[in-house]
This record gives sequence, structure tokens and C-alpha cells, in this order.
Amino acid sequence: MYRSHNCGELREAHQQVQVTLSGWVQTVRDKGFVIWADLRDRYGITQLIFDEERSSKEIMEIARSLGREFVIQVKGTVIERTSKNPNIPTGNVEVLVSEIKILNKSLTPPFTIEDQTDGGEDIRMKFRYLDIRRNPVKNNLIFRHKVTMEVRKHLSDQGFIEVETPYLIKSTPEGARDFVVPSRMNEGQFYALPQSPQTFKQLLMVGGMDKYFQIVKCFRDEDLRADRQPEFTQIDCEMAFVEQEDILNVFEGLTRHLLKAIKGVDVDKFPRMTYDEAMKKYGNDKPDIRFGMEFGELNACAQHKDFGIFNDAELVVGIAIPGAATYTRKEIDALVDWVRRPQVGAKGMVYAKYNEDGSFKSSVDKFYDEEDLAKWAETTKAKPGDLICVLSGDANKTRTQLSALRMEMAERLGLRKKDEFAPLWVIDFPLLELDEETGHYHAMHHPFTSPKPGQLELLDTDPGAVKANAYDLVLNGNEIGGGSIRIHDKQIQATMFRHLGFSPEEAKAQFGFLMDAFQYGAPPHGGLAFGLDRLVAILGGQETIRDFIAFPKNNSGRDVMIDAPAPIDGTQLKELHLKLDL
Amino acid sequence: MYRSHNCGELREAHQQVQVTLSGWVQTVRDKGFVIWADLRDRYGITQLIFDEERSSKEIMEIARSLGREFVIQVKGTVIERTSKNPNIPTGNVEVLVSEIKILNKSLTPPFTIEDQTDGGEDIRMKFRYLDIRRNPVKNNLIFRHKVTMEVRKHLSDQGFIEVETPYLIKSTPEGARDFVVPSRMNEGQFYALPQSPQTFKQLLMVGGMDKYFQIVKCFRDEDLRADRQPEFTQIDCEMAFVEQEDILNVFEGLTRHLLKAIKGVDVDKFPRMTYDEAMKKYGNDKPDIRFGMEFGELNACAQHKDFGIFNDAELVVGIAIPGAATYTRKEIDALVDWVRRPQVGAKGMVYAKYNEDGSFKSSVDKFYDEEDLAKWAETTKAKPGDLICVLSGDANKTRTQLSALRMEMAERLGLRKKDEFAPLWVIDFPLLELDEETGHYHAMHHPFTSPKPGQLELLDTDPGAVKANAYDLVLNGNEIGGGSIRIHDKQIQATMFRHLGFSPEEAKAQFGFLMDAFQYGAPPHGGLAFGLDRLVAILGGQETIRDFIAFPKNNSGRDVMIDAPAPIDGTQLKELHLKLDL
Repeated sequence: MYRSHNCGELREAHQQVQVTLSGWVQTVRDKGFVIWADLRDRYGITQLIFDEERSSKEIMEIARSLGREFVIQVKGTVIERTSKNPNIPTGNVEVLVSEIKILNKSLTPPFTIEDQTDGGEDIRMKFRYLDIRRNPVKNNLIFRHKVTMEVRKHLSDQGFIEVETPYLIKSTPEGARDFVVPSRMNEGQFYALPQSPQTFKQLLMVGGMDKYFQIVKCFRDEDLRADRQPEFTQIDCEMAFVEQEDILNVFEGLTRHLLKAIKGVDVDKFPRMTYDEAMKKYGNDKPDIRFGMEFGELNACAQHKDFGIFNDAELVVGIAIPGAATYTRKEIDALVDWVRRPQVGAKGMVYAKYNEDGSFKSSVDKFYDEEDLAKWAETTKAKPGDLICVLSGDANKTRTQLSALRMEMAERLGLRKKDEFAPLWVIDFPLLELDEETGHYHAMHHPFTSPKPGQLELLDTDPGAVKANAYDLVLNGNEIGGGSIRIHDKQIQATMFRHLGFSPEEAKAQFGFLMDAFQYGAPPHGGLAFGLDRLVAILGGQETIRDFIAFPKNNSGRDVMIDAPAPIDGTQLKELHLKLDL
Repeated sequence: MYRSHNCGELREAHQQVQVTLSGWVQTVRDKGFVIWADLRDRYGITQLIFDEERSSKEIMEIARSLGREFVIQVKGTVIERTSKNPNIPTGNVEVLVSEIKILNKSLTPPFTIEDQTDGGEDIRMKFRYLDIRRNPVKNNLIFRHKVTMEVRKHLSDQGFIEVETPYLIKSTPEGARDFVVPSRMNEGQFYALPQSPQTFKQLLMVGGMDKYFQIVKCFRDEDLRADRQPEFTQIDCEMAFVEQEDILNVFEGLTRHLLKAIKGVDVDKFPRMTYDEAMKKYGNDKPDIRFGMEFGELNACAQHKDFGIFNDAELVVGIAIPGAATYTRKEIDALVDWVRRPQVGAKGMVYAKYNEDGSFKSSVDKFYDEEDLAKWAETTKAKPGDLICVLSGDANKTRTQLSALRMEMAERLGLRKKDEFAPLWVIDFPLLELDEETGHYHAMHHPFTSPKPGQLELLDTDPGAVKANAYDLVLNGNEIGGGSIRIHDKQIQATMFRHLGFSPEEAKAQFGFLMDAFQYGAPPHGGLAFGLDRLVAILGGQETIRDFIAFPKNNSGRDVMIDAPAPIDGTQLKELHLKLDL
């Protein structure tokens, strides 16, 4: 038996108990006649004491030889500490060591195994197994486990069945690129790894499974943006005989349960907002509503004067930044520079200070008088002391730019509070999205999403105006889930494929099985998928998913620890009927 | 709202309640003035009634148009049935339909959606979404969900953390063939899909994670034998600071919990048997111990006479088949033919009837007298009325042949009872296994398995004799789990790789990250993995895993429903820097 207790559980009540502990040496303090060592395991740290009066020479010698991260086993007696450490739960006791065994030595680790480490991201990823010993990473992984357990318990209690769908499926060139897997037994043919179990969960609904979920890995061969992973985890859900309202209620229930069970937070009924409203009010389809700064559209009160820039703009829109009327000229210039950065892309910014005394001072005083500016304040809901920032130009672009400014200012002003949770349903998404490069429409959600009742006809006349039975769940400015009511009629599905540019042959080759299935009594159905990595990160009060994944890949899709991907040998290639084409 | 109740919950207490039901039309019986339809969903079947007196003409007309598997929604009143059906829970009531809506029509399904279907395996797999509507398949999937929920709850309660390990890893040509995934972003390089998360779970132990589990898909590109799948699911577990005894206890606990929670079966402490003993007693490293028929080795009491076949044999070994002394000559000849089939491969079989009256009658009466045969009976524990069957030849082969006979006879005699569960630990497996074709030894479990203490030296002198800290959990004659205590010392791991024929360069290229990790304080650790597909099948009283997988592949590794694998287009190949080499 390697241990009778773990390193996190000894208390004063254990005094005089003989214990066996195993773990890693965190630190050694050698005072000559007495040596202390901190022993660490997953559960905590316990102080070990060795002294010349009470410990044998051999033990003192071994204690002196201990290095950081050595793995040892000790036997000893729990005693009271003379100088207690109130910062750790075991801080009132220490173990007087009577036997010690080095189970494994350690080289000096390349970075310190402490909450604040001296190791940079790259080295921590290469030695991820050491990084995981650090509390922040270890606790994130334990937190993730707690979240998935709660998800499973809650959904299972609601009658959902977790069904495993296959990983070796078929490549379908819609959406992102597939990762493919050459088949040795089927020459010249390939499996694909699922971008999501979408079609399979729909087939489960056709199969009468009724309430399905799965926590499942999905794969996308995309050029990785920051904080994207080629493999990621989804909480994938689908229900039959439901309308949008049923789905919103069920998954609002799940999310509320998680917030309560994991964070102890009670949340009221989630607000709902249409996509159009979200874009108008926040310039963003996943607005962070923990704070205000709603958009005020100023066309009516800014296009009646001689200011050409505004007069020529499709949209003039502003926000009131709380308490920022006191900004110096320099600070405001910095803000103007910020919105002009290529990442944001505004041409410039107009501002108006709404001073505490009720007066106004703007960068466009030449054009607008106090009365005008008072209207701006009214429209942006500015209060005395606020700074009104105004952007103008093409409506969509300007909204996106102002949204960036809004988020940035909220961040700077500390309005994005970690421990505050503001969920929101965004509903009535457009069915199609115009690809500006190709001029083609593609499915905003995916090609199985059903249009709103009665809007099918619009597909021919005004495709961009068709709204879908599609919804996103937004938490603190992040999309944590999204879904839709699906098409369950073969003809409508065929129409949709046609509008998305599939020939009937292509549709049949790629999704024939699904359209066949729809002929045999497909029930109305719909669902939703949560991005687990992001959900966990946000519940954990962070926004970087990488810290919640045990072995993440870097931005080139590489695992730098195991050094993958890697070349394979010629025999393997030959067996797969492949040649490299470099 | 599509339904107020499901089709399995209405009872007499619901009489006069207005309900809305949705589901599939199972059957329609049209008696002219009255029509009954059975409406089915995941939860059961409810009878609908339409009659000319109480239902409108329109409703009667729609009812008449219903075909099998149409999806409909009805509103109506729950009433008492005149002729009750005691075979289904809803059999005392029916719903008098006042509104009906066809939600989706259905073509006639290619096989009947009933417990005993007229569809063969091939057609059921092609239309798996219809097959899943059938109770046997649906209930298996629900059963699988129950098992995984219990596994997770139990392990989580014991302090285990479920950690997701990556699917896109590195190809390591040990064990079976890997499925590989070409990397677009890393030209000429490939990921591999994991055959198991073995190295990652060991790294989690190095990372201090201490108690890990994961229910996870694994992949092997093998030529498929019957009932093997290229993708399969494992309950993968690992613990640090443990000895073999700790692991056996923890996973015996899990298995006992499952038997109790899922099957309501209480099982005593699991017996343990060494590999050598299992081979000697049952000719099998996964013996079914629900019944006896232990092997009796007869060399001592069969090699002293003039019977050359026995005298020349390395092993003479028999079993007593209960109650088979009454077999006719024809029946016994059939048995001899059975053991001589190429799948079994015995050259012949000697038998001795131990008659009810205590007399013996054997096929070798010319050589052996009653006294000899009485000794055979004693050694094989035969009772009057039993038939002693004896095989001889090369020890290993003969044991395997007799094991096949033992299992066949148990099957025929009904001794392999579905509702009886006999778990067994088989321990002390050999570390290495001789590949008879190549003459090389390879790891019986995997190259990370530790040899028994003190046996490392034997590796040079008698590699086949080295025993490992490796164990299998056997249930009803099936290996449901297996594992080992791992090597955690870099030098021993290097020695092991050398003995398995890896050059130091190969070992470093493939497993360098693991050996590096061992230098930074690797704790003693070990683990176990259950084959979930098989575990679920056996708990479900069946031996075919395919019926417990939602979308299985066939013996050529194809998904015949979606028709995968499939060719991919040239652009996709080019992006992956590949050419076909057919």
C-alpha cells in the first residue's frame, strides 16, 4: 500500500496517527539540524519534518538528497506544527518522518510547478505532463469533469439517452474541411471524421430515439484562428416531437442547472432577443449583456447639419461610455487610434463629452449645438459624466466596429465580471448568409435548418430575408450553444440543397441516406449543441479554452509534446494505396 | 406542443382526460364502422379508436388512409377499452380520437418494425434508422446508456476524474495497425487515431492526476474477424500510487456495482486464478466458470499401456460431460467429427462412458481396463452417467481443442445461463508471447507492462518464462477487461523496448515523450481498460456486440447505411498532398 492518507487530508484530529504518504517533493528547507519538505499530491500539500534529534542519520541523509519533484513515500507520525500555516488546510500539522523511500528521482523540471509558474506557453505545452501538476491546470480539468458529470446527470434525469455515433463516417464537402482517414480495406476510399454528429442524431430521431445527447469529439480541418482546436468537444442534443419553444426550455433548464450546481448562481428566465435586435442594439449576434452601452442610432439627430461624413453615412451610431467624460485629449486620441487599428477598421470617431455639470463638449462642436448633443445623449442613454462615442458608415461594418469598441471599453472598465452570468437566447437567425467573395448564399447554421413557417417562398425572391427556426445560447458575450428546428420533409430538404447550390446528384451522393430516411416517417425534430470547451472555460471564469483541455494542439494543429503529426513509413502508405504528392 | 403524454403512460386513472399524442402508426385494423390503430413511440403503444358514431367523417377518412409508420398527432379522450390487452401496460385504455393530423407519411418499410422482424441483417443495417425503432435494438441502446451512466457515477464517486485525451495523435507501429489522418497543414505528415489512450493516461499519472477514467472510442485497422469493429469503445482507467491488489479491488468494486445496479445480482468476492492455472484447468485464459468440466490430465493414468497415440502425446487430457453417457454411437461420432473440424483441429477423440451402473465402456477398451478408466473418471471428476472425452497431442494445441469442446458442450447442455454471472480475475500473465511465424517475442499486453519484481533478469535467459503484473477480468467466458502495472522507470522501459526489437532510435522517435516524462518524477502506476461494447452485451445476456452499437460497421469495415468509406475528390486529395496509388 503506497499511502494511508493523501496529502490534503491531515488535520489536528490526526495527531499521533501513524500515516503513510506518497507524493512529489515540492520544496526542501534545510536548516542543518532540521529539514522540512513539502510533499504534494493531487489533493494538497503536507509538511514533512526530519530532525537530528528524532530522525536517524540515514533518513536525514536521504532527506538532504531530495530534489524538486522527486517521488517519495514516507511513514511517520502526525504532530502539531510549532509555526502553523493558516493558508493551507493541513497547515496545523506536520508529519515526523520515520521511514522514507525514494520511488523515483526527477531531473530539475524546466519550469516551476507552482500556481504562478516561470514557464511560458511553449515550454508548458511541450512538458504538459508537468504543467498538469500545477493547480490552475489540474483544477481546470477537475472542473471540466464536474461539468460533464452534471450535464449527463441532468439530461439523463430528463429522459435523454446518450448514444454513441460513429467517428469513421463519410466526407461531405459542406461547412468546414473534413479530416479524412484512408481505408486500407476499401482501396482508394476514405472515411471522414465527423464535424458533428448532425446527420446521425437526425437519423436517431427518425429511429424514434426521441431525446438524444452525446458528449462527443468533433473535428474540423480549418486554418486555426487563435483559440480554435482541430478537435473539440460538443454536448450534442436532439429531440423529436418538439417545437423551438420546447427546446429553448429544456436547454435553458440544463444551463440554469449548471449555473446553480457548479457556480451556485441562480438565474432568472433567460431573456430572448431576435438576431435583428441583437445586431441593432449591440452590433453583435452574441452580445454580452452583463453591462449596458446599448447602441443609439443617431441618423435622425445627426444628419440634419452640414457634417458631410455623417450625412453620407448609411448609419450613424453611438454608445455612452460610463464615466469617461473626464478623459483627457490624449486618452481620447488613443481611443480614436484604437478604433482605427486594422483589426477594428473604423475611419475615425466622433465624440461628445456629457460633462457632470450638464454641458457638452464634442469633437464636432462646429456642426452640432448643445440641443443636438442633448438628443445624442438621450438616444445613447448617456448620463452626465459619460463619453458618447459615435461611428458612421456602412451599417453592418459600423455596427461591428462599434461592438468592438463597446467590448473593449467594458473590459477596460471592469464591466465583464467573472462571477456574473448573463445568459441570453438569440433567436430568428437568417437562414442564409451571403458569401461576399463568391456572391453565393450558404446556410448560416447548416443545410438541415428549417425556414420559419411560410417563408419557403421567399427563398426564390429574397433569400437573405428568410428567417430560420435557429437559435443561439449566448453567455457573457460568447456563443456557448446553437441549434435549430430541422427540416423533416424530403421535398423541403431537396429544395434547400438546390438553393445551396447542390445538384440533385450531389445531394443524393452526399445526403441520400438522410433524404431516404425522411421517406419512412421522419418526426418533427430539432436540437442544439453546446461547445463544451468554451462552456467550461466561461463557467470557470476564463475565455481561453486551451487551459481547459488536457492535451491541446497549437495554432498549427500540432501536439508539441508527442510531436504529432509526423511522417509515416512507406509500407504504411503503400498499404493505404497512397503516395505523397509534395 | 406535439404531445401531452407519451404512448406508454396512459392508464385507467387517466380516463376522461383529454390528451395529445404523437407517434408512429404500428397497425391499423379497419372493421368498417370502427377503426383501431396502434400508436407507437419510444415509450410504448397506445390504442386509438375511431368510430362512425363518435368520429367525424373527415377523421374516419384520414384514419382509413393511414399506413404503417405514418407519423401522426392525435387529440382525444382516454376511455376504458371494452376488450382489454393484459400484455401491454396501456392495455386497459384507448384514446377516442377527436382530432388527427398526419405529420409525415411513410413508404412501406422494407421490414416489419416488430420484435421479431422479417428483415435480415443486411437490410436492417442499411435501414438502421428503422431497425432502431424496434424494441430489441432500442432497448439495447437504452441499456448501454444505463451502464455508462452507472460506470461514470461509480468511478466519479470514488474520486476518479474523466479526462478527454486527444484523438489526433501519432502513429506507433506496435500492436495493430493504426488508422491515419493526413495533415493538410503539415505537409506529408499524418496523425493517427488512438488504438487506446495508453500513453496519454500514463502521462496523466506523471501529471499527478492520480485516478483517471474515460469512456472513449478507440480505433484499430485490423482485418475484421466476426464481431470486431474498427472503432470500439473502452472504459479506460488508470491510477497512481497503487499496486496490483489496489487495482483489482477498485475494479472488482466497479463490476460488482454494475452487476447489482444493472442486473440486481449480488456477487461474492471474485475468484482469482493464474494464467498458468487457467490454461491447465480450462485450456483458456478466459474460462467460463459458470459450469465445471475442468480438465483432468491423464498422462499418469493413460501412458502406461500399449496405446501409441497417447504414449506419443505431450499431453493426454479429458473432461467429463455431465449426463452424456447415454449418447448413442451416432451422437458420439458426430462429436468426434465436431472436434476434427478444421476450426477445432483435433486428430481424433477417445471417449469413455461412465455408465449409471458404475461400469465403463470406452473406445479404447482394447488398451484400458475398468481400473484404468476408473482413474480417468477420478481425474476428470466424472460421475456415473457422464461421458469422458479425451484429446491428446501437443500440450498447448490439445488444451485449446479441449477448451473448444468444453464450451460447445456447455452451450449444448444449456450450462451457459444468461442470467448467471461468474466473474473471475486471471492474473500473472506472461510478459511476452512468442510469434511462431517470426520467432520473435512481442508484448502479450503492451510494451508498457511491468515484469514481476525480480524477473527482469530472466528476460535475457528465458523470455517466455517472465511473468507480468498483468491481469484480465473475465466474465462468463469473455475477457471484459484487462490491464497491468506499468513500468515507470526510464531504464526498465528502455530495456523492454530493446527486448521487443526496437532500436534505441526507434524507441526514442516513437515513445521519446513517454521516456522523457519518466525522468521527471513518474509515480508507480497501473490501470485497466474494459471493452464497453462487450461488457454491455454480456450484461445484456448476449454475445454479439453489434446489437449494442447504434451504427455498427460490417465485416469489411463499411457503414452500409451512409455508404462509407467513399472516394473523395481530387481537390481534397491535392490539399492533403496525396495521390492515389492503386
